[in-house]
Parts: sequence; C-alpha cells; structure tokens
Amino acid sequence: MHHEAVSTRGLDGVRVADTELGGVRGDEGFYHYRQYDAVELAARRPLVDVWRLLFDGSLPADERQRDDFVAELRPLQTIPEPVAEVLPAIARASADVMEAVRTAVSFVGAVDGFRPTLDIDHARRRRDALRACAVVPTLIMAVHRLRLGLEPVEPDPSLGYGANYLWMCTGERPDVERARAIEQYQITTIDHGFNTSTFTARVIASSGADVAAAVVGAMGALSGPLHGGAPSRALDLLDAIGSSENARSFITDAVKQGEKIMGFGHRLYRTDDPRAIFLRSVARRVGARHVAFAEEVERTVVEVLAELKPGRELHTNVEFYAGVVMDHCGLPRELFTPTFASSRVIGWCANILEQAADNRIIRPDANYVGPPAPQPVPEV
Amino acid sequence: MHHEAVSTRGLDGVRVADTELGGVRGDEGFYHYRQYDAVELAARRPLVDVWRLLFDGSLPADERQRDDFVAELRPLQTIPEPVAEVLPAIARASADVMEAVRTAVSFVGAVDGFRPTLDIDHARRRRDALRACAVVPTLIMAVHRLRLGLEPVEPDPSLGYGANYLWMCTGERPDVERARAIEQYQITTIDHGFNTSTFTARVIASSGADVAAAVVGAMGALSGPLHGGAPSRALDLLDAIGSSENARSFITDAVKQGEKIMGFGHRLYRTDDPRAIFLRSVARRVGARHVAFAEEVERTVVEVLAELKPGRELHTNVEFYAGVVMDHCGLPRELFTPTFASSRVIGWCANILEQAADNRIIRPDANYVGPPAPQPVPEV
Repeated sequence: MHHEAVSTRGLDGVRVADTELGGVRGDEGFYHYRQYDAVELAARRPLVDVWRLLFDGSLPADERQRDDFVAELRPLQTIPEPVAEVLPAIARASADVMEAVRTAVSFVGAVDGFRPTLDIDHARRRRDALRACAVVPTLIMAVHRLRLGLEPVEPDPSLGYGANYLWMCTGERPDVERARAIEQYQITTIDHGFNTSTFTARVIASSGADVAAAVVGAMGALSGPLHGGAPSRALDLLDAIGSSENARSFITDAVKQGEKIMGFGHRLYRTDDPRAIFLRSVARRVGARHVAFAEEVERTVVEVLAELKPGRELHTNVEFYAGVVMDHCGLPRELFTPTFASSRVIGWCANILEQAADNRIIRPDANYVGPPAPQPVPEV
Repeated sequence: MHHEAVSTRGLDGVRVADTELGGVRGDEGFYHYRQYDAVELAARRPLVDVWRLLFDGSLPADERQRDDFVAELRPLQTIPEPVAEVLPAIARASADVMEAVRTAVSFVGAVDGFRPTLDIDHARRRRDALRACAVVPTLIMAVHRLRLGLEPVEPDPSLGYGANYLWMCTGERPDVERARAIEQYQITTIDHGFNTSTFTARVIASSGADVAAAVVGAMGALSGPLHGGAPSRALDLLDAIGSSENARSFITDAVKQGEKIMGFGHRLYRTDDPRAIFLRSVARRVGARHVAFAEEVERTVVEVLAELKPGRELHTNVEFYAGVVMDHCGLPRELFTPTFASSRVIGWCANILEQAADNRIIRPDANYVGPPAPQPVPEV
C-alpha cells in the first residue's frame, strides 16, 4: 500500500481504472466510445447501435443484429406493475422529475429481481443493466406527464429511440427531424470518461451492489449543479440577456463581477468541446429558434473573455447548445437534466458491467488533519 | 494536471481528501472519531453525543447541550405523510429491507425540501443531514414491520437512541442491557475512514447534489456483499458449523478449498479489528447466546489459518461479533445490514457536510486500453 504525501483533492488526473469503453482527450477536443469517434457515431448511427457497442463490444454488423438487440430491449421498457401503482403519488409529491425518477428506479430495482453484481454471471448482470437503461426513459416521461395530470404514454415499439422518447412525452407522432436531433443529443451524452456520476456508478458497483443501486447513486450525482444538474441554466442565460443589443454589456458585467457564465468551460477540454460543436451543427440543421442568438452570445462571451481574462481558455461546453436543441425538440426545461440521464444511464451501466467483470473494491484513504488522537473522553 | 503511469485500482492508500472527522490506523488496530478513540466513545457515551461530535465538532459539555441536540432531532424522526402513504406498497413489493429503505429515503429527500448542498448555507445543509439520519431508523423499522403485516410503531421521545430503535422493531419496552448493547454496536459503526459507502457519499455530494441523493447512493454501496451487505453471513457460518465438535474439520475443509471465512480479515487492519474486540466484550457482558461458541470458532479459525496459511494475518472483523450482538438484541438477520446503515448514515452525513464546506468536484481519470481511436465507423 503506497501513501501519497498530500491528498489529491478531486482526483484530477488520477487514473483509477483501465477501461476499454472510451476516453476523452481534452487537449485535442476529442472523445471516443471504444475505438470510434463519438461524434461520428452520433452523426451516422442510431442510438441503439452505440448502446450495443458499449454493452457488447461491437456495432451491429447488419440490420439483423440491430433488430435482435432491439428485440431484447422492447419488453424491458415497460414499468413494472408495483411501480406503476405508486408512481402517480411519487411523481406528484416529489420536488422535481429527477428525484421522482431516482425513487422510481430504486423501486424498479427492488421489484424486478436485480441481484448483487458479483453473485451472478455476465449474462444476468447484462439483463439487469439493459433493464435499467430501457426503463429510465419510460419512467422520465411517465413522471413528467403524471406531474401535469396526464396519463403516461406507453412506449411504441414501431418507433426509433429518439422518436419514442418524444412520443412518450407528448403522445403525438414526432417530427422526424426533431426525433433525430434529440437522439443525436442522447448519443453524444452516453459516456464521457470517468465523470462524477460514472465514477459513482463504478464505486457503488465495486462493493458488489446490484445495478439499480449503482444507477440510483449515479442519478444522484448527476442531479448536482456542478455536474448534470444545470443544463437549463445556459438557456436561462439567453433569456436573461434577452436580445442582441444587451449581449455585450450583460456579459461584460457578469465577467467583471466574477460570475460563472453558464455553458462555458469544462474541466477537461482546453479547446472546443466536440459535443458543443456537433450540437451547434444539429441546432443549425433543424433551424432551432434560439440558434442564431446563441451563436451571437457565444461569440460575444469569447470576445469579452479574451479582453477581460486574456489567456483563460473558456469555450462553450455541451450544455450551451444542448439546451437549444432540447428546447427545439419540445422538451420543457425541467426535462433537460432527466434527458441527460436518459442516455447517460447507458454509459453508467457499461461501466458497471466493466467494473463487475474485473473488480476490486474502491476504497481510498483520507488524510486526517484534526487534533491528535486519542485524547481522553471527558465526563459530561 | 498530473497523470500516473498506471491506474490505481481500488485507490488503496490514495489519500483523496483531508478530513477532521477521524481516521483508521490499521497497523495499530485503532480508529477514532475526531480526537477520541471510537471504542472509548462507545464504552462511555450515548450515541447522540457522538452524533453531535461528528456534526458540530464537539461532545456536549453538559446535559443541557445534549438535550438541546436531542430536541432538534425529535421532530425529524417522523416519516413524512406522502412517504407513509406509499410505504406499505414499497415495503411489501421490495425484495429486501435495504432496497425498500433506499427507495423510501429517496422519496423523503424529494418531498422534504432537501436542496442542492452548494446552493445553501451550512445551517440548511445541517438540517437536511439531521433529517436523513433521524428518519432512517424509523424507516427501517416501519419497512420491517410492514413486511410482516404489522403496523409501524412511532418513535418514542422518552427513550434513548438504542432503546427507541428496538422499541420501533417490536413495540415492546426493550431490556436496558439490550438497548445499550445495540446502541454500542451502532456507535462503533458510525464512521470508519473512507470506506466505499462513505466515499460514495462524498463523490455524490461533490457534484453539489442534495444530502438525500448522497445518502441514497451510499446506501446502495453499503448493500454490496463486499461492504455491508453480509454481516449476517458470519452468523450463518456459526449455524453451518453447528457444534464445537465440527469446528476444526469444517474450517479446515473450508480453508483448504480456498473459501473465504466470513467475519475474518479486513483490508485495513493488520492486527485485531478494535470493533471486533469491543463487540466481543459487549456480547460477553450481555451473555449473548452465541458468544461462547463464537469465541471457540474464532480460536479455531486462527489456529487453522496459522497452520495452513502461516504468515497470513487474518483476524476477526467487525462482522463476526456484530452478528452475535444483533442477534442477542432480538434483530432478525434481514435487519443486520439495515442496522449497520442506521448509524453509518451519521458518518455519511458528517462527511457530506465536510465535503460541502470545502468542495472540489471529484472527477478522476481513466486509462484507455482498447484499440486505438479513432477508427472509421463502418456502414451497416
């Protein structure tokens, strides 16, 4: 056992595991799922292909392999009966959609035969992981509709992943372009190195806990404002600026007051976030209503920062155009973080499966800095 | 950002944070809560004093400070109405008590105004943390009784922590000795370095997520068999051995077949686990029915290991006598892991508060070992 002299707060740059699932090259503005450019996958493949790639190691080679994978998923999308019964109460009483879905996923794990990952074989773990990933989008939209006083809409097996997602939201046949746009957003957010929620999933799984336990924990981490809990804030920024004339003065004031500009900056990227570039192109392609204004604000932020904070590399991150795309696809802001979770759960589960296949329990050390121990316990 | 050449699987010995909450000295067989020997605290103080020590930095100096702290807790022990309404359905449909409590805690967080920890001040975070710790024991026993078809028993404000815990289990006035024994078990398990569940809580909290999100994740980690998911297995071992005559042959066979002996060995302790020593003394004091046999098995395991695996230091860990104590106090085995959680939640929450007070998001790196990327995405 080796001891570092100082604690490594935040674990920046500490490589906690080997992985074959992908990586992020911050200096190059590049990230990948297994051996493929994640953005190229999002441009050219349906989400289910990427899901199969991460779970099973390869893209489907033909239509039949794709159909086989989809056929496995279909029955796992449905909400189990005991959960469906209490979901209206959970949805209505919870403060937000994420918290209700977290509770519901926990309950699905408890009623659907999820088993401790190290007590079962890979096939059984994979079943639990597929189940978690398949049911989360259904739960998100069921909770959303129940909160609005509407009946949930059942998944439609004739629809692709993104189309079904929007269908369960509105109960209306979605526009093809919007369905593809939301699916592309979902593909780009499936995985991204050992971000906090993915790491959480691996830590929990390392104790041998079941897939649901790990997913519920990861969902909690994603709800944090420093992680996935704030994609709507970039859109809120556009609202706050209001119009082109205000952009420069608003941003200058914000930077001078030391405020964080939402949608800008990422711990890993020292150049453009490839997800932001891709989602900007998606937003342009579908003619998202905020896109021109968003690009103007983006340019202004970059200019103001270059002036006031020269040398500080701050580029738009995934959140900035993600909000523009999700808004265009008809998702209300309270569904932005849940939609992030809807596909990130696939990344969590791929990581859980990898952790379980070659596990060592994750148990770090801490650096005690309090008064010397032991001191005598005083009498009351 | 520094990169280590190899991944540090399991993070053994990697100091991920400074802490004033306590520490574990594996070589000395010693652990402490702040500046006090944890075992001395368990021997001499009620649990609420230790809870205050960890949350607020000091033991109550007099009865009045203790009473003030207890008065804060009392109203937070009650299950909120929307949770109480669906709890029977959750309790009955869930596969085990831990999963039902995990779901219920998630729901408490969603209905009880828990807020992202970095968006609020310390007083508000502390309220959320007190709430989580106060309600978990009530939820455990309510779930337990509902699964048996019984009505939950309300907390009794006239009782101490351990007595109230047993009261909510049975609805009968508990024996004073048993109440003290279970409370001492609960004190010894409040905190223990950056174990997997405690680390999970800190990772989730580091994203700014609320206290409930972090506790729910930690609860998931604790449910893993490599962490807290197996304290009943040591008692199962005693059952399997059955009688003194069988001990030597049973254990010899198990060791020769390379089986793990439940209740023996700990990643950190190279000598006796101080919790095991203390809980053995508690079990003796109260005359627990399994204690003589357990001590005999302990001696036999140590002897057999010395013979067959010389040089391998394996001592009884906390699980071995914990099971004996909990059994004596009338807790069924399915409540062993939940009871571990009932007090460990205090350690989780103290860590969440410390993390939130001086936060940096925890986001490690991974070591990509798959085929070189990018390779062209093939056509279907």
